[in-house]
Formats: sequence, C-alpha cells, structure tokens
Amino acid sequence: MPHLLVIGGSDAGIAAGLAARQHDPEWEATVVLADRYPNFSICGLPFYLSGETPDWRALAHRSTAELTVAGLQLALETTAIDLDPNARRVTVAHHGQCQEIAYDELVIATGAKPVRPSLPGIELEGVHTPHSMADAFAVHERLADITRVAVVGAGYIGCELADAFTHRRLDVAVIEALPEVLTTVDPDLGGRVRQELTDHGVRVLTGAAVTEIRSRDHVLHVCTDTRGDIAADLVIVAVGVTPNTAFGRRGGLPTGPRGAFVVDRRMATGVPHVWAAGDCVETWQPLLQQPGYLPLGTTAHKQGRVAGINAVGGDREFAGSLGTQVVQVFDLAIARTGLRHDEARHAGYAARTADVTVDDHKAYYPGATPMTLRVTGDQDTGRLLGAQILGQRTAQVAKRVDIYATAIHTGLRVDAVNDLDLSYTPPYSSPWDPVQIAARRWLEAGG
Amino acid sequence: MPHLLVIGGSDAGIAAGLAARQHDPEWEATVVLADRYPNFSICGLPFYLSGETPDWRALAHRSTAELTVAGLQLALETTAIDLDPNARRVTVAHHGQCQEIAYDELVIATGAKPVRPSLPGIELEGVHTPHSMADAFAVHERLADITRVAVVGAGYIGCELADAFTHRRLDVAVIEALPEVLTTVDPDLGGRVRQELTDHGVRVLTGAAVTEIRSRDHVLHVCTDTRGDIAADLVIVAVGVTPNTAFGRRGGLPTGPRGAFVVDRRMATGVPHVWAAGDCVETWQPLLQQPGYLPLGTTAHKQGRVAGINAVGGDREFAGSLGTQVVQVFDLAIARTGLRHDEARHAGYAARTADVTVDDHKAYYPGATPMTLRVTGDQDTGRLLGAQILGQRTAQVAKRVDIYATAIHTGLRVDAVNDLDLSYTPPYSSPWDPVQIAARRWLEAGG
Repeated sequence: MPHLLVIGGSDAGIAAGLAARQHDPEWEATVVLADRYPNFSICGLPFYLSGETPDWRALAHRSTAELTVAGLQLALETTAIDLDPNARRVTVAHHGQCQEIAYDELVIATGAKPVRPSLPGIELEGVHTPHSMADAFAVHERLADITRVAVVGAGYIGCELADAFTHRRLDVAVIEALPEVLTTVDPDLGGRVRQELTDHGVRVLTGAAVTEIRSRDHVLHVCTDTRGDIAADLVIVAVGVTPNTAFGRRGGLPTGPRGAFVVDRRMATGVPHVWAAGDCVETWQPLLQQPGYLPLGTTAHKQGRVAGINAVGGDREFAGSLGTQVVQVFDLAIARTGLRHDEARHAGYAARTADVTVDDHKAYYPGATPMTLRVTGDQDTGRLLGAQILGQRTAQVAKRVDIYATAIHTGLRVDAVNDLDLSYTPPYSSPWDPVQIAARRWLEAGG
Repeated sequence: MPHLLVIGGSDAGIAAGLAARQHDPEWEATVVLADRYPNFSICGLPFYLSGETPDWRALAHRSTAELTVAGLQLALETTAIDLDPNARRVTVAHHGQCQEIAYDELVIATGAKPVRPSLPGIELEGVHTPHSMADAFAVHERLADITRVAVVGAGYIGCELADAFTHRRLDVAVIEALPEVLTTVDPDLGGRVRQELTDHGVRVLTGAAVTEIRSRDHVLHVCTDTRGDIAADLVIVAVGVTPNTAFGRRGGLPTGPRGAFVVDRRMATGVPHVWAAGDCVETWQPLLQQPGYLPLGTTAHKQGRVAGINAVGGDREFAGSLGTQVVQVFDLAIARTGLRHDEARHAGYAARTADVTVDDHKAYYPGATPMTLRVTGDQDTGRLLGAQILGQRTAQVAKRVDIYATAIHTGLRVDAVNDLDLSYTPPYSSPWDPVQIAARRWLEAGG
C-alpha cells in the first residue's frame, strides 16, 4: 500500500490527507502533528477566549474519531525533525523517542508561527503570542483573575481579540505602530473600525511602537515611544505570522522572499515527491500574476486539497487567492477582496476607485443600516480589480464581497456587475444591489 | 429639443426616463402615469400592509421632487389610451380630458396587472387583487376592523401577504390549488415554507381550487373543491400577474405566447421608435436561449435602463434574466437562481441535482442555523445551471444565491465554484462556504 505522509494537522494538512484518501483509497495516509489537536479551527480561538464558544472541543472541524473513520492515521504529539527526500524518510520525535517514517509522497503543511518581536520583556510571564490550542489554554486560564489586557497589534486578529476580551468584560487597550487599525483595508475604513472599538470601550493607541515590556509589582507595563506606558495584567502580541519552514528547509526546499516555500500551482515544491500547502507556502495571486504570502484558512484548505490529490496521482491546480477576507469587530463587518487602489497602482494597473454609502436594504423595511462599498477597477480595460465593504453585521457584508470575488475570479468588467441578475426583496436589498450601485458609481467616476 | 415619452411610472418607466436623461440631457423626458404614485416600490406593499412600514410615502424609491430635479416631467393621473406610431403621437386622458402628445422616441412600460380569475363572487366587496397603491390603500383601510383574511394563491406574494397579515395579528388562511406552496422552488422546499407558515399560525390549504366566493351576513366565504368553505372578512386574490399591453397593442406591437410584448435585447419592439421594458415584455433567458415571461422588479429596472439609453441614441443590450429571486416568509429566506432540475431537464440539459444541509456558519459561534442548498448542473459540460437555498433570515441566503447567480452569469462550471476565493470568518461562514460544500456534493453525486 503506497504511503502518503502529511506533516501538520491543521487546515492544510488535514485537507490534504482527506482529499488524498477520497481521491484514491488505496493510499495509506498518516498525519503527523506536534500537539493533540488535529483539525482545530485556529480562526475560532478569539471566540473561545471571549466565552462565546465555552467548550474548546467545539473548535474542532472534525473529531479525531471522524478523521480516523475517514482513513487518516494520526500521529499526535509528534514533531517532525528531519527530512531526507532522497531516501524518502522523515525523522520524527514522540515523547523524546525518535523514529523514522518512510513515505512515497510527502505533504508539508507546517503552517505559520506568530511573529515574536525581539522586544525586551517579550519573554515575561503574562506575555502571550497565541496561535495554538496550548497557547489559547494558557491565556484562557488567566482570564478569570485579571481586569486589564493590552493587545499589541491591530490587524484583524488584534481587533477580534479586542472584541473578545471586551466581551469578557475586561479593560482592553490596543497598541498599533501604524497610524490606523486594520490596515488590510483603506485608512478611512480602518478609522471606522477604530471608532467601533472605542465606542465599545477599547482604548486604541495608534502610531505607538512598543519599545519594551516591563513587570513591576505583578503588573505588566507596555512601554511605547509616543503614548507612554500601558499597564496590563496580560499582554497579547498579535503582530502577524511567519511561515514555519524549519523542517522543510532540512530537506532542501527552496523558500521565497517572505520565507515561505516556493510551490507551483500544483503545490509541488520542486523536490521530488514533496508537496507543500497552507500557511508555510507562497500563494499564487492571479491579479498580480505572481506569488505572495497570504496566510488564510480558506486558502490553506484549498491548497491542502490540491496537494493531497496531486500527491496520490491526481492532477489539480490551485486557482489562486484574491486575498478575500472578512472580519467581525463588535457590530461591524469589514471585508475585502482583490486589490485596493494603492495595491493596484503599485502593480501597474491604471486603477480608479470609487465608493458609495447606501442602505443595505430598502429603508422602509425596518433595520436598514448604511454600508460603504468601495470598488477598484482598471480604467484601461474596465476590469474589476478589488472591493472593500464595511457595514453592520446584519448587512450580508461577507457574502456581498463574495459576489465581487466571484466577478473578479471570472475576469468580469465593472460594468458587467450591473448586468448580474442578483436577488432582491426589500428586507435584504434594493432592486439594484449595493454592489451594483457601487459599480455604477465607479463607472460614473470615469466621466 | 427631442422628446422621449415614457408610458408608465413604475420601476421600468422611471428607470428609462432617468437613464435617458443621464445619457443625453439634451432630451426632454415625459413620464405618463395613471396614478399619483411615481416610482413606488410595489415590492414594498406587503410591508405597508403588515405595519412594518407605517408611512406609505416611504415606499417611493424617489420623491416626485427628486424625479423632477433629475429632469423628468411627470404627467400624473394620466392614462395613455391610443398610440399612432406612424405619426409618433400618443393620446392620453387626464381627468376626462383627452390630449395628444408627440414623441420622438417612446418607451412603453405599462407593467402587469393582477390576474382576476373568472370566479363567481370575484367582484364582491372585500375581495381584492392588490397591485397598485390605490389597491393597497383600500386593503389597508379595512385591516383595522377585521379579524380573518383569506389569501388565494401561495406564490411568493401570497406567502409574503400571509406573513404580513399575521404580523397584524389577523387570522390568516392561504388557499392554493397546487399541491404545495411557493412553486418557484422544489416541492420539498415549498413544504418547509408551508411548515414555517403553519408554525406561525397560518392555515395552509393546498390542493384546493376556489370555486366561488360568497357573501353571507357580511362575511365572505371562499368555497373550495376539496377543503370546504373558508370564512373571512377580507379576501386577497394573488394568483399571478399578466402583462398590461392594451395600450401598446393599439399601436400594433406584437406580443408573444404569454401575451407580453416581443422585444429584442436592445428592448426594441420592432415598431420604429417604440421601445418597451418591464413587466409588459418578454424577458431574455440566457440559460434557455429564448424569451419567457419573468416579471420581476430587478429585471424591470435593468430593462428600463437599457430601453431609455437606447431610445436616446445609446447602444446597450439587456444581459438577460436568470430568474434570481428571494423571498422572506417569517424567519425563513428562500432563494433561487437559474434552472431547477425539472426545468433544466425540460430544456434539454443533462441535469443532475444534489443538495446539502449545513450550518450557515461555524457551529461553535452562536446563532448557527441549518441551511439547505441545492445545486443543479449539466452532467455533460459540468456547467452550473441553477441553485435553490432555504435558510434562516440571518443566514445570508440572498447574497449566497447571488454568488451562484454571478457564477451562472459567467458560465462557470460547478467544480470552479470550489476554486472561488470566498470570505470566511466563523460568525459568517465556514472555510468552505456552504455554496462550495453544495457544489462539492454535486460533483460527488456524479461518482
């Protein structure tokens, strides 16, 4: 029986194993993972910490039993430490015991690890960079005894955590070195998110670089260059992630400028019989026609699936990522897909951008709320390049951005968005959906 | 100054006038309408009747003042009675006075009128077929004094009205000749809507043809062939609409098998200088490559715009309709786009259909609810042909069906739906959105 070995038991690794077994059940599939939590939803950690998901077990996309029934052999609490691609052998360690595992095909899905800035005090007790279940347990354990949390980094995870800790009735400060929060969207939209944070009692300190973390009398102090010191009982550092590639590099896998494995669109690494997927690899970006580093769960699932199927003899291509994402911060939903204006310009497009603020549905039906939609397109070709939407959580923001994502995927022009036959009833939309009103505004902005 | 004359002041007519003026402000544009309510949202009538929209004035998409500022001359309470396309003249009547209006280009947007079945008793006081503002006022006026309403017809308007009258705390019975309610979706999904209606206290009588309406002691009795007589203080007949073409036929405009004007994709009628749009015309259906009769507000707006622009010298094509629609019935949202299985088979496609019931978002985040998605595709080409979704009103059903509508519009294959980079955060979705899980199920059903 041929043997597929998967290193990593999160989104990409499990997707690879399941897809491989589904594609060809003749293959044996082993998934090696460092902890005891296969197929856990890392994206769910903020909701476990907020208390909205009281039982951490609920965060598993599938139970260990389900994975086993699907034909995966799970090697829990097992760390992959060395790779010999010529001999097709991996060395793993389990409770201090080393062992070799032979493979016919290997999928590396070692994910990402949180960036730990080299700050004085980063190693202090009470300073966390949560990314794994173990990290989440450690943070969770402290929450009952504290009142103040400082979150360093106001990206989407920082914003979600600020929401989560506020839900726990803790005092929350968010500290961000950049001038605005949530820089995945334009600064003015980020400003609306900042307002939402402050409206819910979060202290938002932007343009403040952390210089040091100190501990005094059992209290942590986050020292900044421009906003003084912030006292906290717990400090969360959420300043991004970096690809976890140490294992693969042992086997000679090449990495790109951001440190992630270079792969082709079949998720092949170039090293024979070795595939890679998820947050440890570069991601193909069709709008830029080049790879980038875009660690997202949706992408990890898709890449894992492609890698798993190809590893056992299939032939799939990863279609690429538009960087589509959505985040909920208190009552706001903020989403983006494709390129923002500055990104499109930088990539050489003749970008034009227009936006509109309209009700999410007919104002005469109760509950209508204003929603801002921003569309970026190429003036030369008329092609839709990107969109950002900010609205209330009830405003179907997430699936509206997906209409744009689908349109971009298929190469639609902005004017064609107005040809789409979209659904309408007064409680949910207007006869021209807001996504079309924004497209129209973009066309009008062209004169 | 060249003169555009528009007959009809609802969605298509106003869209035509506004688009024409925007395209070329050199044109004078007059909109003739039979009542005093230009640009009113007919789709909003159920919410006025329910009390959720207390002020009927809010139902106007735009006020008369806004329309005037946009350059439209409105001829209110004016009925178009004759058309001489050779002389390019229309005869209209206003408060009993006839008048002729000359035009350079004419857009006919006379809409639809409700079907009034030839039933004994259909003319009785208390029996209404609401379609206009005047009808709505007449019904509204009676609501305060009554307790029982019978709604004949369980299409989407009948279902919305059943919801609306229940919201008013009236006892509601719905009577439908067909075996199930909401036949725009498959019968099993219709059955879920029936359950929602009965769960909210609506009596649903299906397979019951109305034979007569009688009045006895100030009470109306709706007599059926199989379910006896239903007593009511008010009877609403909502059994569909039929194109309102009397005026245009005076000018020799040809009509198709369903009685609607035949138009090309530029909304030209074949009679020189006469265009038509909205619920009075046949609608191009790209999936069937033939016209049909699909009276929907979204389509009326799009067609009106195309007609108006072309009338004043532009060159646009109507892209066609997929029949995308969504309706809210109490806490349920039910949507469809494209072809159902039976429709696809009938059209000669090698249709295959599969469905899935999954949570609208990750179950570990509060408020997840099950949602049924049904996908129809062509087994020979793999092309996506249609989708139906039923879920809770919070489940982004409307904009999820729009992802499918966008995919169908662009000719996407079902397997390509899984390549779409859709947004994900646990409160709104799963790493594979439900629309993708359903697409996957469709592929698996192919073996």
